[in-house]
Amino acid sequence: MQEVPKEDEISFTLSDSEIQSIEENIEDGQEEAVETAVANLNAPDCAELLGKVSDEHRQILLDQHASAIAPDAYAELDPELCKDVLEDMEAPQVAEIISSLESDDALEVIENLDDDFQKEVIRRLPFKTRISVEEGLNFPENSAGRLLQRKFISIPQTWTVGETIESLQASSDDDIPEVFSDIFILSVDSKVSGKVSLPRLIRSNNQTRLESLALEEIYSIPATMDQEEVAQSFRRDNLLSAAVVDSEGRMIGVITIDDVLDVIDEEAEEDILRLAGVKEASIFQDVITTTGSRFRWLFINLLTAIFASVVISLFDATIQQLVALAILMPIVASMGGNAGTQALTVAVRGLAMKEISKINSFRIIWKEIIIGTINGSLFAIIIGLTTTLWFENYALGIIIAVAMVINLIVAGFFGAGIPIFLNRIGSDPAISSTVILTTITDVIGFFVFLGLAAVFLI
Amino acid sequence: MQEVPKEDEISFTLSDSEIQSIEENIEDGQEEAVETAVANLNAPDCAELLGKVSDEHRQILLDQHASAIAPDAYAELDPELCKDVLEDMEAPQVAEIISSLESDDALEVIENLDDDFQKEVIRRLPFKTRISVEEGLNFPENSAGRLLQRKFISIPQTWTVGETIESLQASSDDDIPEVFSDIFILSVDSKVSGKVSLPRLIRSNNQTRLESLALEEIYSIPATMDQEEVAQSFRRDNLLSAAVVDSEGRMIGVITIDDVLDVIDEEAEEDILRLAGVKEASIFQDVITTTGSRFRWLFINLLTAIFASVVISLFDATIQQLVALAILMPIVASMGGNAGTQALTVAVRGLAMKEISKINSFRIIWKEIIIGTINGSLFAIIIGLTTTLWFENYALGIIIAVAMVINLIVAGFFGAGIPIFLNRIGSDPAISSTVILTTITDVIGFFVFLGLAAVFLI
Repeated sequence: MQEVPKEDEISFTLSDSEIQSIEENIEDGQEEAVETAVANLNAPDCAELLGKVSDEHRQILLDQHASAIAPDAYAELDPELCKDVLEDMEAPQVAEIISSLESDDALEVIENLDDDFQKEVIRRLPFKTRISVEEGLNFPENSAGRLLQRKFISIPQTWTVGETIESLQASSDDDIPEVFSDIFILSVDSKVSGKVSLPRLIRSNNQTRLESLALEEIYSIPATMDQEEVAQSFRRDNLLSAAVVDSEGRMIGVITIDDVLDVIDEEAEEDILRLAGVKEASIFQDVITTTGSRFRWLFINLLTAIFASVVISLFDATIQQLVALAILMPIVASMGGNAGTQALTVAVRGLAMKEISKINSFRIIWKEIIIGTINGSLFAIIIGLTTTLWFENYALGIIIAVAMVINLIVAGFFGAGIPIFLNRIGSDPAISSTVILTTITDVIGFFVFLGLAAVFLI
Repeated sequence: MQEVPKEDEISFTLSDSEIQSIEENIEDGQEEAVETAVANLNAPDCAELLGKVSDEHRQILLDQHASAIAPDAYAELDPELCKDVLEDMEAPQVAEIISSLESDDALEVIENLDDDFQKEVIRRLPFKTRISVEEGLNFPENSAGRLLQRKFISIPQTWTVGETIESLQASSDDDIPEVFSDIFILSVDSKVSGKVSLPRLIRSNNQTRLESLALEEIYSIPATMDQEEVAQSFRRDNLLSAAVVDSEGRMIGVITIDDVLDVIDEEAEEDILRLAGVKEASIFQDVITTTGSRFRWLFINLLTAIFASVVISLFDATIQQLVALAILMPIVASMGGNAGTQALTVAVRGLAMKEISKINSFRIIWKEIIIGTINGSLFAIIIGLTTTLWFENYALGIIIAVAMVINLIVAGFFGAGIPIFLNRIGSDPAISSTVILTTITDVIGFFVFLGLAAVFLI
């Protein structure tokens, strides 16, 4: 019996001090101690160790202690790090690692490798693994086919509970996945006619025919379905596993909820990073790749910033006459950008969670316009008064107030409208919404404020 | 046997046209048609319908067709919408709905209600549900105790597989959760000594003692553990369910992966929204509440924008002499803000996924400084040349180039440093990082650019 530790002693992650002690042993050349420590880690812990040690220490672990690292640990690594680590190895070693993984993990690891190296590794895989990996790679990236586990439990329609359990007990471990939640009932032509959950099976009488236990509603996922849709169906219908079928409707594998968990993490990560203009980054990406991928986004931003500056330059004479305009103009632009980003983020998240569709998109945009109008009016009063007091110029106060209302309404409209529009035309709403939005709020912010000043003030 | 639909016919969500037809029937007063349509929807579909119809139609559905709505549908609603819908009902009706939910769903629904109404509802619950709800509410918000399902399968150490299955078959449906993945082995004092997965149980010989099947490593989750930690342990160790223990180490319930899925969605949503300054918003929040919660964030942004303007005003004489400065200064600030946001988002995500801890945080910050230096230098060249050509003033070109490098290095350092620092002192790194960062990049951007110009140019 195990002592239950107190809360602050519990840790589901490898502690920093454990990692540190392994790193110290590496430094001190205590090879045996390192080997023992690594061999004693389970796969997730081992992956965490490899993720957190310095690059030099990781190299030493991989070069000198590869035999102590469980193959599963590679599948648990951050994809970017996994790619780097495996591409430093020889193809036969990678093939050995991959052939000891389950089919979904194997595919997940291999799909990230560079094309040439990937081919080399695949050539060296055992026949059965090779076929399943090659078939998997034929499915589009991020599709259900890439997630599927090829081992699953299927039973003919006519069997009873007793026969099913006997057959499970008699099967060898090689034919049965380690974890499964449902048993699928297949008709003679391999089509899914139902599924029985394990709790239902185990609680039923041995003589009961499986057919009579099966759930009527069967979610067969086409292998080409996008993983985001797959995640949505699990989330929505509280599934633990689902059958995946080929274009003929024949069952070819199963997707389990633990893979869906990874998908949900991945999709959330994609949205949050893309909104900030970071594409598929990870803390493990090398400096040059990271710098390059960020450069592109910043370059687009530079162009839009220059465009905004050109708008300002239209009013250079006005600014020269009243420097207060230069002092105040960033406020209008910045408030528009922030208010727009709020609306935009809510819309992007609503789209990702499928809460927004055609039927309610106008209501969502309309709501943002109202919010923009209310907050715009409130901030117009605040900034109008502040400006009047600061520069002792009430006309300037009125102008900045008007510019503020207009920019916040514009921000609400485009903040919700841009992602909804991008989604409608089939683009990823997270990927370029921010830059389009801030270009609009900057340009409108500067133009309206300076334009009104030029007309009414000078 | 079921026809497998073609891919474009498959939909796991209620289609917009189905929703539209129900809305048309509501408009036309076809009460019976509406009643039948709603009664035929499963809980997730019904929740989707309530989420997507207009406010007026939703009211009609709830007023006139409440009996057709499955109680489970309320648990599937967006929390904000669920709160609104239930608070419009009478307490006895809500109590009836809640008492027919499983304990984890019941708690999830009830915890969002306003205090007074919540007490009224709880008073009307059946004794058993009431006790379990009250106990649940005693755990801190967002803790494991709030997620737990009180029905679970536990078996004494000494039982065999056969005895276990027999007892499962003999138990009434009321005592057994609909879905479970593991059976927990309890010692006499209710402490968890192991767990056996259903696949393992079902594949074992009837005479085998459960003890010999049990997994050694048992993750007992303290009821007070934060839900983010809970999610991390499921994610990391590929759990399907885990025992939850009280402060004495006695098992009081189980957390299942479908609840963890919701937590992961919730935490991802929190991060993405907080980075944009939206606190716990949902598309279902009413306009006034939404406007109010966004106002607070925008107000803080207004203060920082005014602060940046004060910095600009220090250089009003300089700007008057060279209006080009006013035209160019937003470029430096905006590039700093964008580069910083990139670094910040990667760090916030790395912290949420527990990829960053004390041991590697300096490496992460250092990497961002290097990226800032490289991209800063590249953009310095681009903007330096552009400025020199645009304003035919090479000195101005050099000054904006220097300001760009400095601001992008600052952005990298603070972009990664702020969330890591906030996390270290126990704050949520997503919640105020953005505003601190953009204040810094704006102020540094304006100050360095205008300051250098004032010293070297005028």
